[in-house]
Amino acid sequence: MRYEEMKIEGRNAVIEAFRAGKSIDKLFVLDGCQDGPIRTIVREAKKHDTILNFVSRERLDQLSETGKHQGVIAYAAAYSYASIEDMLEEASEKGEPPFLFLLDNIEDPHNLGAIIRTAHQAGAHGVIIPKRRAVGLTATVARTSAGAVSHIPVARVNNLGNTIEELKDKGLWFVCADMDGEVMYHLDLKGPIGLVIGSEGEGVGRLVREKCDFRASIPMKGKIDSLNASVAAGVLAYEVVRQRMG
Amino acid sequence: MRYEEMKIEGRNAVIEAFRAGKSIDKLFVLDGCQDGPIRTIVREAKKHDTILNFVSRERLDQLSETGKHQGVIAYAAAYSYASIEDMLEEASEKGEPPFLFLLDNIEDPHNLGAIIRTAHQAGAHGVIIPKRRAVGLTATVARTSAGAVSHIPVARVNNLGNTIEELKDKGLWFVCADMDGEVMYHLDLKGPIGLVIGSEGEGVGRLVREKCDFRASIPMKGKIDSLNASVAAGVLAYEVVRQRMG
Repeated sequence: MRYEEMKIEGRNAVIEAFRAGKSIDKLFVLDGCQDGPIRTIVREAKKHDTILNFVSRERLDQLSETGKHQGVIAYAAAYSYASIEDMLEEASEKGEPPFLFLLDNIEDPHNLGAIIRTAHQAGAHGVIIPKRRAVGLTATVARTSAGAVSHIPVARVNNLGNTIEELKDKGLWFVCADMDGEVMYHLDLKGPIGLVIGSEGEGVGRLVREKCDFRASIPMKGKIDSLNASVAAGVLAYEVVRQRMG
Repeated sequence: MRYEEMKIEGRNAVIEAFRAGKSIDKLFVLDGCQDGPIRTIVREAKKHDTILNFVSRERLDQLSETGKHQGVIAYAAAYSYASIEDMLEEASEKGEPPFLFLLDNIEDPHNLGAIIRTAHQAGAHGVIIPKRRAVGLTATVARTSAGAVSHIPVARVNNLGNTIEELKDKGLWFVCADMDGEVMYHLDLKGPIGLVIGSEGEGVGRLVREKCDFRASIPMKGKIDSLNASVAAGVLAYEVVRQRMG
């Protein structure tokens, strides 16, 4: 499999992409355009929770590679997202307690790629990312993951908080990285677990953080605030690995 | 302090920079140019182990910001490197066993910045990088380190292997990240330690690796080779932190 971000331009092409079930990450539509095909596209986009941007003709002309965008350009990941059920099944098949990563607000594709790579190497069963305010599986993410995107399932969800609630019902515990939390070495991270990682700037959002069962802190001895998001994810993930091996 | 990469252009300016003791990371000299001032500059560069590049006039014109390079452009880090003695003194003042990072072949400035940040947050006393085949403290490194470069000393050495030998005489043990090594959780990392981190592609060079007392492996459960270099450094560093806290 190869992962590249595809630009799909023109009304028919975009409608076909939706009908073929392609994952459209983002859609740019000419602002004010209201004809039949465009309305169909916008309806499909809303149905699939695609991020919709209404933009000027100049912006579309800039984005266009073909010069024939007809008022619509879609960005599709040449990748199909997995379901959370797939992840839980994989854990069950391996006879392991589920170990999932949930990424809140990770907007940097290099960080996303490095985290997917870490999740795979640490033996996690999947990575869950929100549809909004997050980067999708772009070519950069695939490259930074060193190919891990083809080995570990990645799911996109509408609302991380709801997903946490659903997974709690299935027996998972949730721990988020939080500077003010308990030192991670003192927490029991051996059971079925979801690791919630936030962005560097904002950390884990308040609503998501409040749904977590534990807040784990990484000891920081320096004079600055935090670690790089992918480093923090790695350090926390390997504390789970260590405890599970012990 | 601000860290910016400075471009110094012109013969006098470059000679002055060397005489003022500035850290010149890289020097671009017009290929075939052999007059007195240029010979003086090349001699200074060799004395300070600056990376020398002989390039065409077109390349110099491209690099030039002033348009007046006179056949020579130097890149200086607006940063003065520390000495290893400073690092050992800091450890001694804090009453801690020395904890140093040694970076072999890290060429990516984002990785270098993230590793310096991690070293600082993990409580290491310094970061040692080789002069050759490595990126220096550029503006990108400073930015990626989130300012940690202003809090943790960074030293540059001619030969990492020799530095390891000298530090062994002062009681340090050296551990390098190595996929074929012993699982890190089983090693004793509590004493005075130097952590040797290699690049993603090549890992730690053979000569340096052979000088290490231990080879530590991070358990990898995935189908790909390794972790991102800065993630691996973080995971290994925090195993040292954990053991020292215990």
